[in-house]
Amino acid sequence: MTYPTYTVQLPEWVYSFIPEPKSIFSTIEERMELVIGLSAQNIRHEGGPFGAAIFERQSGKLIAPGINLVMQTNCSVVHAEIVAIILAQQLVANFDLSAPGFPEYELVSSTEPCAMCLGSIPWSGISHLVCGARDEDARSIGFDEGEKPPKWLEYFNSRSITVTRDILRTKAMAVLQQYVDEGGIIYNGRQ
Amino acid sequence: MTYPTYTVQLPEWVYSFIPEPKSIFSTIEERMELVIGLSAQNIRHEGGPFGAAIFERQSGKLIAPGINLVMQTNCSVVHAEIVAIILAQQLVANFDLSAPGFPEYELVSSTEPCAMCLGSIPWSGISHLVCGARDEDARSIGFDEGEKPPKWLEYFNSRSITVTRDILRTKAMAVLQQYVDEGGIIYNGRQ
Repeated sequence: MTYPTYTVQLPEWVYSFIPEPKSIFSTIEERMELVIGLSAQNIRHEGGPFGAAIFERQSGKLIAPGINLVMQTNCSVVHAEIVAIILAQQLVANFDLSAPGFPEYELVSSTEPCAMCLGSIPWSGISHLVCGARDEDARSIGFDEGEKPPKWLEYFNSRSITVTRDILRTKAMAVLQQYVDEGGIIYNGRQ
Repeated sequence: MTYPTYTVQLPEWVYSFIPEPKSIFSTIEERMELVIGLSAQNIRHEGGPFGAAIFERQSGKLIAPGINLVMQTNCSVVHAEIVAIILAQQLVANFDLSAPGFPEYELVSSTEPCAMCLGSIPWSGISHLVCGARDEDARSIGFDEGEKPPKWLEYFNSRSITVTRDILRTKAMAVLQQYVDEGGIIYNGRQ
């Protein structure tokens, strides 16, 4: 007898939504538009309202998109950020996106990452984080973000991980609100 | 063109090391012995010195083992705890190990979970955490545990997640020390 396996895999619809891999997204707003679009599309496909993607920071090349796959695949770990990190590391064949010779990689997330995803960032080698909706935007309509270190921004900076917030914040939050308005399941942690 | 996939899968050696799935580990020390054994064996197979497993808390039935697969599979996310959580949720076909009708599930970890893994626990539905080596044991020999909320134990308790520490702590720490003494790679987060 063996244990099961679990495969992280983008669903087919993502391929019709995003452009060819390695497309260029020049501005931070273009990158955020893509991940907010992913978050909105994921709702249409029985998923949670969260999208993310990893880009080469300087060139704007799309490396790997991610969507929340928790409900569709029975796995609480596969938040959008985690999916993007896993796929990006497979693409570059390295568990450290800051390995020598690599360009800087940027994680763009439609909502500020939860406690788990924040914890995953220093291990991933990502050097820059961009957020749309804020932690408090998600919490205000019932999502659980977990317990983060109060000074996580300072901790990130001390590890040379920079953070940009509030990019298309209103648009990102509108997708969260739409999900709630349509009766989407808000699965929270143990209470 | 498509994006890569990534499969979480226990290596073959795990099957010869652990007993048949659903074996019973009656005491907390027996459970910890298993995960410390996994951590030690993983060193022999080019992996990091960390093991974990999920058990049915009352019966002691082994649900899913986990080992750190970061270096072997180019994926910074697959700490031992994350692997155990993913496999357990596949086995029970639910992203919430606290779903109605389920027994209580317990995560046993050879070393206190890092910031990412702590963040993953409230989402997983695990109701009890058991740790061997402490956070400061890991840090004292160079491992990076990340930035945790200072009051994470209280936060866990407020979510009805209980924690037991220092089970076979000395034995668990000896495996970490052995790894360092043998020149094992200590990959840390961005500094």
